[in-house]
Amino acid sequence: MAPMWNYILLGFVPLAVALEVLHAPAVWIFLVSALALLPLAGLMGRATEELAARAGSTVGGLLNATFGNAAELIIAIVALLAGKIEVVKASITGSILSNLLLVLGLSIFMGGLRHSTQRFNAQAAGVMTSLLTLTLIAFLLPAFFDLAERGFFKVLDPALPDQMFSLATAGVLILIYLANIYFSLRTHKDMVSGLSDEAHHEAHWSLPVAVGVLAAATVGVAVMAEFLVGSLEEATQALGLSEFFVGIILIPLVGNAAEHFAAVVFAMKNKMDLAVQIAVGSSLQIALLVAPILVIVGYLAGRPMDLVFQNPLELAALAASILATNAVVRDGESHWLEGVMLLGVYALLGFAFFFTPK
Amino acid sequence: MAPMWNYILLGFVPLAVALEVLHAPAVWIFLVSALALLPLAGLMGRATEELAARAGSTVGGLLNATFGNAAELIIAIVALLAGKIEVVKASITGSILSNLLLVLGLSIFMGGLRHSTQRFNAQAAGVMTSLLTLTLIAFLLPAFFDLAERGFFKVLDPALPDQMFSLATAGVLILIYLANIYFSLRTHKDMVSGLSDEAHHEAHWSLPVAVGVLAAATVGVAVMAEFLVGSLEEATQALGLSEFFVGIILIPLVGNAAEHFAAVVFAMKNKMDLAVQIAVGSSLQIALLVAPILVIVGYLAGRPMDLVFQNPLELAALAASILATNAVVRDGESHWLEGVMLLGVYALLGFAFFFTPK
Amino acid sequence: MAPMWNYILLGFVPLAVALEVLHAPAVWIFLVSALALLPLAGLMGRATEELAARAGSTVGGLLNATFGNAAELIIAIVALLAGKIEVVKASITGSILSNLLLVLGLSIFMGGLRHSTQRFNAQAAGVMTSLLTLTLIAFLLPAFFDLAERGFFKVLDPALPDQMFSLATAGVLILIYLANIYFSLRTHKDMVSGLSDEAHHEAHWSLPVAVGVLAAATVGVAVMAEFLVGSLEEATQALGLSEFFVGIILIPLVGNAAEHFAAVVFAMKNKMDLAVQIAVGSSLQIALLVAPILVIVGYLAGRPMDLVFQNPLELAALAASILATNAVVRDGESHWLEGVMLLGVYALLGFAFFFTPK
Repeated sequence: MAPMWNYILLGFVPLAVALEVLHAPAVWIFLVSALALLPLAGLMGRATEELAARAGSTVGGLLNATFGNAAELIIAIVALLAGKIEVVKASITGSILSNLLLVLGLSIFMGGLRHSTQRFNAQAAGVMTSLLTLTLIAFLLPAFFDLAERGFFKVLDPALPDQMFSLATAGVLILIYLANIYFSLRTHKDMVSGLSDEAHHEAHWSLPVAVGVLAAATVGVAVMAEFLVGSLEEATQALGLSEFFVGIILIPLVGNAAEHFAAVVFAMKNKMDLAVQIAVGSSLQIALLVAPILVIVGYLAGRPMDLVFQNPLELAALAASILATNAVVRDGESHWLEGVMLLGVYALLGFAFFFTPK
Repeated sequence: MAPMWNYILLGFVPLAVALEVLHAPAVWIFLVSALALLPLAGLMGRATEELAARAGSTVGGLLNATFGNAAELIIAIVALLAGKIEVVKASITGSILSNLLLVLGLSIFMGGLRHSTQRFNAQAAGVMTSLLTLTLIAFLLPAFFDLAERGFFKVLDPALPDQMFSLATAGVLILIYLANIYFSLRTHKDMVSGLSDEAHHEAHWSLPVAVGVLAAATVGVAVMAEFLVGSLEEATQALGLSEFFVGIILIPLVGNAAEHFAAVVFAMKNKMDLAVQIAVGSSLQIALLVAPILVIVGYLAGRPMDLVFQNPLELAALAASILATNAVVRDGESHWLEGVMLLGVYALLGFAFFFTPK
Repeated sequence: MAPMWNYILLGFVPLAVALEVLHAPAVWIFLVSALALLPLAGLMGRATEELAARAGSTVGGLLNATFGNAAELIIAIVALLAGKIEVVKASITGSILSNLLLVLGLSIFMGGLRHSTQRFNAQAAGVMTSLLTLTLIAFLLPAFFDLAERGFFKVLDPALPDQMFSLATAGVLILIYLANIYFSLRTHKDMVSGLSDEAHHEAHWSLPVAVGVLAAATVGVAVMAEFLVGSLEEATQALGLSEFFVGIILIPLVGNAAEHFAAVVFAMKNKMDLAVQIAVGSSLQIALLVAPILVIVGYLAGRPMDLVFQNPLELAALAASILATNAVVRDGESHWLEGVMLLGVYALLGFAFFFTPK
């Protein structure tokens, strides 16, 4: 989960600070701070797990469920406060895409090469696909709302109802997130208990070490995120990439690399339940917790962000990834071909984003 | 099914007549006639069941299948003849929404609080979700047809092909409705027989009483519907509601309250098959029988109504409710969290309709 | 599979040649060459099976998988080279529609009249519905890409990115096609082996006869396709049909009639696995092999064809047919009512295409 190369990559953290202090070209700051985020996000996850391991299963589950995507949340808040609202929205979409298509696809493919048919808890998968469908509805609805409003009515301030509706949506999503936690950790614990037992690892770090690492890594992520966002505009121009591409492809890769690695390893060990749980659970966390928090933070900070994804390609990508995942996951078993299929959808979407003119 | 408060609410019937005669303000007539419709719709359902109980299972099933949504059909026809076509269309959508999300959601939630996992006939659920999918296609297709026609071709009278296509669609839907009845009452009776046996209750009323109550309640519904529709325009302006909101939220609540109550009670008694049957079956009846009848009645009465739902939010709402129901129902089991999810989708749609400018 | 009337219909081949030589009216050439294509396409399929029967299961499976839709591919290439790009695209959509709705619907309906519940391999069905979902995504994505590009950016040459994206999509589709063949013929052979054994028939023709028939039928298809395409414009005007209607309804019927017949016969013998395999497998072959080949051939021949289906009705039809098939097939069992439902969707689409003004 935190292998040797993770520590080596930490060398990029001081390097990024040095480049920033020396006013190095934006491209360098952008690339080095992106690389530095990889091990820092990994360390945040590792320290959270250490704390969870000491805390007993319920509180531990709660910790993992709440801080599992903390690194991405920090990066997104920094970008939001810098006014990069389209990048933030793209990173929400991109996180869901990369978890459902890239992580789950690679896990099913790599696991499937070793194991002819892999099975996982169909009941838990049923609940997950239901929640994914809710997510799809919640993310597509505001676009239709916006369309209805623009097309059928003349509004003086078109942003106002979008904003109110997005806040109401955020409230509903957080309620469902809390209901899901109560469901998994209390009323239907045994339905998913096999999962947490298997994932449960012993605490290796002392409590002060775990807390200290978490605090240091959190600060590191926040600082690197400032560098990344600060250099974003200049760097993307120099690299010939769109900010949208950075948000939808690069930021999710950087924020999720450690989880990606863990899911594939579990799949190769035929612990498919854990791999599915990481990939789908992480997507649900982004949709039901991270996205609504960003809407509320943006509202309070005077940087109002709605949930209206206006790029039709972004909407299509969300719908495609959730439809494809539901098709693959709902029968509770997987073969390598289904992994190829999910990776194929990711490739199609990647081409679409790449060929989209800047 | 017809508890005490149902009889108390009947007091609103003479009150509505008095207000109408005295030319009371439209808001009062509107609200009182809406309240008066609640017990009348309930009595129509009860009298139909009494007749069905005397009639043997096949004819009884036929009676229930045909008159189950008679109250809503009467209200819709009155509104259609008054030229309130958008209200009628909204009430069709709203009926499907409230049955699939509100009734089914509440049933699964309330039932799930008492019973950890509730199971229902997966085979029957499979047929139902297939029919829901057909419904979705039939209701979305005319909008795409309309779009294709407007966008790609210049038509002299744009309403003409829409009208012809809607009539053809109505014919196909009624054929499938008849096929479904033949399927459930004849060729695959045993697949759903557990259902009707459990639901079957003994006749308590004498035949003349049942016929008399049915006749009186039908007349009552028709009169109250006239009052409701007559006061609609003035009342909605006074209340600050859109006619669309009345059609999509209020009319379905009024027409279906008795069924809603029954489904939740069955779910709490762990008779999940019956609850699913009421909620999904009622939606299918609206889509496959009531909607096509309205198209044909409108055509014959010179008030042509097509099935083109042009409000993108209405289309999204239909798609969302059917997708969410399919996700929840298809595995033949439910937990309270899935009820929360359906109610969450209803809340999201409610917010969207509420925040839509009038 | 190749009954008597097939040989009688071959009489239309010389008749078509005669009409062409005599410069008969285009309508006659069009109709007679369409009728002549029926037995020729059937003979190509029969000869391929004869070769496959001699070749052992792997190579035989490969032959069937590659040449199963050869007749349609030839017709489409002839139309493509004649610049009838919209007809070619319509015939791709139409082939998928007619296989999923007409062939599968008729098979389930006719089979279901004789057998109350028909079961088929749910595992294989699960893989198929996953691939159908991928197909849906791959075919819808370019339209959203096109929309994003037009709506959000100003491009100098709007066709350029569409073309590049379509070529990339074609590459991904062919890769997934190859992966699927490797999956079915190598790594997961036993999962679908029951299928091929049952379908396997003994070789009746000597090798030279099989090769000769295949060559002759291929030439015949190519010549008749030339006549059909050459007379298309004049004939459709005379008949009052749109070229779109010919592409989406008529060409698929002509190219697939033999398969249609075979699938229904298998279903009536309760060999539902084979019927599903023919209908769904053929659709997948069109989407994953024929369509990408056409994109590449068009590109090489200077007749660039993208995969952007711009008619919203065509997109809706693709989505509808795949959603309906998934709903019916995913539980691994079928009843006659589900056949009625698929045929109902086909009728709705047929009405929509028919009422669309030319």
